[in-house]
Amino acid sequence: MEKFMGENFLLNNETAVTLYHDYARELPIIDYHCHLSPKEIYENKTFKNITDAWLSGDHYKWRVMRANGILEEYITGSASDYDKFMAWAKTVPMTIGNPLYNWTHLELQRFFGIHEILNEKSAPKIWEKINALLREGEFGARDLIVKSNVKVICTTDDPVDSLKYHLLLKESGEFPVSVLPGFRPDKGLEISRESFLPWVEKLEEVADRSINNYDEFLKALESRVRFFHSVGGRVSDHGIDSMVYEETSKEEVAEIFEARLAGNTLSVDDERKYKTYTLRFLGKLYAELGWAMQFHINALRNNNTKMFKVLGPDTGFDSMNDDDIAKPLVRMLDSLDRENLLPKTILYSVNPKDNYVIASIINSFQDGITPGKIQYGTAWWFNDTKDGMLEQMKALSNVGLFSRFIGMLTDSRSFLSYTRHEYFRRIVCNLIGEWVENGEVPKDMELLGSIVQGIAYNNAKEYFNFQEKQNNQPVSPTL
Amino acid sequence: MEKFMGENFLLNNETAVTLYHDYARELPIIDYHCHLSPKEIYENKTFKNITDAWLSGDHYKWRVMRANGILEEYITGSASDYDKFMAWAKTVPMTIGNPLYNWTHLELQRFFGIHEILNEKSAPKIWEKINALLREGEFGARDLIVKSNVKVICTTDDPVDSLKYHLLLKESGEFPVSVLPGFRPDKGLEISRESFLPWVEKLEEVADRSINNYDEFLKALESRVRFFHSVGGRVSDHGIDSMVYEETSKEEVAEIFEARLAGNTLSVDDERKYKTYTLRFLGKLYAELGWAMQFHINALRNNNTKMFKVLGPDTGFDSMNDDDIAKPLVRMLDSLDRENLLPKTILYSVNPKDNYVIASIINSFQDGITPGKIQYGTAWWFNDTKDGMLEQMKALSNVGLFSRFIGMLTDSRSFLSYTRHEYFRRIVCNLIGEWVENGEVPKDMELLGSIVQGIAYNNAKEYFNFQEKQNNQPVSPTL
Amino acid sequence: MEKFMGENFLLNNETAVTLYHDYARELPIIDYHCHLSPKEIYENKTFKNITDAWLSGDHYKWRVMRANGILEEYITGSASDYDKFMAWAKTVPMTIGNPLYNWTHLELQRFFGIHEILNEKSAPKIWEKINALLREGEFGARDLIVKSNVKVICTTDDPVDSLKYHLLLKESGEFPVSVLPGFRPDKGLEISRESFLPWVEKLEEVADRSINNYDEFLKALESRVRFFHSVGGRVSDHGIDSMVYEETSKEEVAEIFEARLAGNTLSVDDERKYKTYTLRFLGKLYAELGWAMQFHINALRNNNTKMFKVLGPDTGFDSMNDDDIAKPLVRMLDSLDRENLLPKTILYSVNPKDNYVIASIINSFQDGITPGKIQYGTAWWFNDTKDGMLEQMKALSNVGLFSRFIGMLTDSRSFLSYTRHEYFRRIVCNLIGEWVENGEVPKDMELLGSIVQGIAYNNAKEYFNFQEKQNNQPVSPTL
Repeated sequence: MEKFMGENFLLNNETAVTLYHDYARELPIIDYHCHLSPKEIYENKTFKNITDAWLSGDHYKWRVMRANGILEEYITGSASDYDKFMAWAKTVPMTIGNPLYNWTHLELQRFFGIHEILNEKSAPKIWEKINALLREGEFGARDLIVKSNVKVICTTDDPVDSLKYHLLLKESGEFPVSVLPGFRPDKGLEISRESFLPWVEKLEEVADRSINNYDEFLKALESRVRFFHSVGGRVSDHGIDSMVYEETSKEEVAEIFEARLAGNTLSVDDERKYKTYTLRFLGKLYAELGWAMQFHINALRNNNTKMFKVLGPDTGFDSMNDDDIAKPLVRMLDSLDRENLLPKTILYSVNPKDNYVIASIINSFQDGITPGKIQYGTAWWFNDTKDGMLEQMKALSNVGLFSRFIGMLTDSRSFLSYTRHEYFRRIVCNLIGEWVENGEVPKDMELLGSIVQGIAYNNAKEYFNFQEKQNNQPVSPTL
Repeated sequence: MEKFMGENFLLNNETAVTLYHDYARELPIIDYHCHLSPKEIYENKTFKNITDAWLSGDHYKWRVMRANGILEEYITGSASDYDKFMAWAKTVPMTIGNPLYNWTHLELQRFFGIHEILNEKSAPKIWEKINALLREGEFGARDLIVKSNVKVICTTDDPVDSLKYHLLLKESGEFPVSVLPGFRPDKGLEISRESFLPWVEKLEEVADRSINNYDEFLKALESRVRFFHSVGGRVSDHGIDSMVYEETSKEEVAEIFEARLAGNTLSVDDERKYKTYTLRFLGKLYAELGWAMQFHINALRNNNTKMFKVLGPDTGFDSMNDDDIAKPLVRMLDSLDRENLLPKTILYSVNPKDNYVIASIINSFQDGITPGKIQYGTAWWFNDTKDGMLEQMKALSNVGLFSRFIGMLTDSRSFLSYTRHEYFRRIVCNLIGEWVENGEVPKDMELLGSIVQGIAYNNAKEYFNFQEKQNNQPVSPTL
Repeated sequence: MEKFMGENFLLNNETAVTLYHDYARELPIIDYHCHLSPKEIYENKTFKNITDAWLSGDHYKWRVMRANGILEEYITGSASDYDKFMAWAKTVPMTIGNPLYNWTHLELQRFFGIHEILNEKSAPKIWEKINALLREGEFGARDLIVKSNVKVICTTDDPVDSLKYHLLLKESGEFPVSVLPGFRPDKGLEISRESFLPWVEKLEEVADRSINNYDEFLKALESRVRFFHSVGGRVSDHGIDSMVYEETSKEEVAEIFEARLAGNTLSVDDERKYKTYTLRFLGKLYAELGWAMQFHINALRNNNTKMFKVLGPDTGFDSMNDDDIAKPLVRMLDSLDRENLLPKTILYSVNPKDNYVIASIINSFQDGITPGKIQYGTAWWFNDTKDGMLEQMKALSNVGLFSRFIGMLTDSRSFLSYTRHEYFRRIVCNLIGEWVENGEVPKDMELLGSIVQGIAYNNAKEYFNFQEKQNNQPVSPTL
């Protein structure tokens, strides 16, 4: 029996132990997609207590607290930070089998040196201990990032964002980590939502040009892509709750756009045409600039109207969607590829029924130049679990090239989430170790070590080619 | 190598062995959904032989016999009971890898003390031995239930049922097990089927009120819900072969209902609107009464027209359906939640592609008051297998709280099926034990034991709060 | 740790070792579905080098080479055979976790006695060694088939094919393996494609009758089925990218057909009606002749328009489709069954989301006469992996009868692919061995051995009842 989250946690064979400790553990992190706040990084935000750091924005935790019968008052409500922490501590033992149980204890171990198990009984002492550490400093946002050996962070930013804090971070030069913007134009794609017209107005402002028709809209969008590029942005991200592709023309979409500007309600079909054309326009622009385009597919958001009215989006009331994706996704990629303007693309679905579909689609569009140009992205959101990661890795390896995988990102709003890279790397090493144990793969540590290091760091480094602040060389084995 | 179905069957690690034998094994059973006959319970039905007990109504067995090339004569036809038993015995060895192989031998072991392996050769002696036991008594319906340590049984009953045998059982007071009705109004929802109008007539009769419009129909339905409640009913169940949700109004549905009463054929859209509104009406009523509402989703029934004409429904000619469920299911739950009338709800799909969808949906609707109020129900029907159960448990634990799971039910037509609870409990204990072995969960036997006991019995007890005939206290560890 | 692809590769327990080596290993092969060329068999095609044998037509390898950043020149282009082999050798180490890694080394071991690991470094020597062997002979198409202990091969043939080489092989009598045609009328079903009208013309020619209406078309099709039958054909195969079933009548479809003949464009609905009726017509004919009908469902083909224009179909640009299948598939089978003309049927889907759906559907249509009449076919294409095979086997065993499974086929274009049967058999033996280890199945080697031999050979032999050239007896244990 393995010790609870000991040194060889999740490493069930000798090969895995060697791969993790000798090859993967010390590698830096490229966090190419997350939801960290550039403002908080710039200001080196400190946390007044562990509730502030752990519970103030983490809807993963909120969801399971609600499922555990904890009143909203102790989750997002007016209860004291101490009481909220105690409510969480009471919930933790009920989360066994959920990644939160392991993430929680990894964060306690790695950031605070606490190897106790968190529960209602141990909580008061842990509260004191962590809060003392937080007060004593070295636990600001920047400290946590540096301690985690992060080289690059790509945040998630609205095209209408001024990128003020990215620019300040870039100018100041003192922070050794590249903090780059990620272009996420969902509000500009969701033409039927209430948020659309106000967003177009903001776009007019920030792009400093008036938008009276689709052409002007696309030009304004393009100017923002180019602005993000000038700040170091090399990734975009699209939340595509339902994958779409409809044949249409620019003329047709221009009419649709103008109808919307005029305040008309659009048909579902018109909405799909608008999304298709606009997404294709952006895709071609990304290709031209060498960006990587990310699609996050099949989420169903804001399911709970009552709570949405109280708490807004991203508060733990989402789920998987189960729309079909194969045909529209293939057509979208093909439409770009036909014009030789398919950018590097990373595909994620939050519904595991899409795992093998995506794994099989990516290799219909590889170009024979960039290894792994079209990527099947790591397990996302509800799948960001040991089982979910394994399913993604097995689908990827069974139908394609595991060794070209660009690996993990945090997708997180918390500065403490970098331990998820450790979790991921242990799982990668164990999977390869199991193949060796099983006689399926030779115990060639040079080959396996270099594959592990590729997935942990080097593949992403070569794939994105971000501006790093320091050493730009691929990292060699630490042996 | 583990002995075939020995003491530690399915228990592959020390933690699992301890959890099962010291915590789970002796707990009583709450069978909150099954298809047992209250009449047979009341009358303490006895079985003339093992064919009568095993093969007279079990379409799971019938299906694999057909697949094994056994003529219908030896399944549902005119062959002698002995010949039917021999046909089954001949099929049993071909079922390795199917749960029937393990269920069969568990039932032989637990009820009849037979540890031999059933096959064509051993069958004649086993036939004699079991039939002798059946003749000697202590093997009536009630005996089997009591031997299985069952506390509560919820049957599945049509709203037009008089609940005569439930009432007799209640009145007689002699049977120590609560036998409660389960409200299953499928025939009242399936408005387009031939069975609908005759069913409305029966409803008029049993509710003793005339039904000339939708309002009167809903009042009659409501009166039956309240009648079931008065007899101790606290659960409803809906067979929803294709999940629906359509925005509509009472006025619109009233017209649809009256068109149907007038003998008109409805459009698919009208049918969906009728189902949506009627289901919402019932859901709110269940919420008011504190019931738990069950949805059994995505079955495709009576696939074989030829055999349906001969044998009718529930005879082994069904399969999974693969309709999308995410959006209509979310909208249905949200529509109730918006009115603060979402009842306790248990969601099952027979298609494993829905596992993670459901596991992610439930936690969009937890209320922070009742722990695990919205449940992802245990693996159902074709998934009622070791692999199917594990997939359900992993989906549930990865995306939510395994420890709040209300656990197993039999869904069975047979009094011998209670051994499925043992099968389930062993799988639960082994899963937790594997987490411990793997270092993912600490070996805290008090915590793990209480979680196992929760899933095996206590969670269901607290969740449903049925009227039990005896001891109403949650059961403590047997250590 | 198991030696890399040693004697007990994939056999992780004692039962598995015994089952494989003592029961499965030496059994002959019935390859009831493949894409081998009868011309190449007849002519005993020899290979000028390993690139010719391995890389000239294998789109599985091409795909991963592209994903590995290999230029098309080195894949399907003008590079030398040596350079192409080196490009493949460079890719091989990157395929760990993909079945290609194991297939490659199995083929090196079994056909060429090479136990080295293939990579860029070992490649030049391996190139020399294999090419020398190929030159020295005994490595023609027929030699490879005979060495692989194949008894029957069913190729995949267009109804308009003259079957010249099948006839020559039959007449010559010298080749000890039955090479039988497989009827694959996809081009006759895909009424809306450009290829349809030219295909009808070819059909007119080969059937020697004019086709001016649907009746004449069906008669011509029927004549080809009967011709294939006369040459020993006993299987058909349908590539059904999207499963269809639409109620229609012969009159309606006759009009649709004639509209198409007249050069009209059909609606999607018309296309579906045509396919439904024509497929039903063929199904009934197959039933009459005792054929087995195969459906290969849910592929999405020729996704990459740019490459399709250069390389045509079957060049590595396909993926899974994700259409729903349950209702149309059930209706298709039921429509045949209702007329007592449902043939033996084997269902495959390339999308694993359909695994359990198919496994549950087949047993709605078993007839109680032919064991396993309706089969869930072995893992196909993208699922032809260890994990994919296990998923298919688990779905099949959990919901039906594993022991009636007719097992493996190669589906391959390569004469070296017969080692996939070894791969498959090892996985079958290991799965059964795990059940024994786990106490789920008794260690009754006679029973388990006969089940393994059934799945490896005997079940297919009895199921298809092909004309074999030699010994027609089911093979007994080799012990």
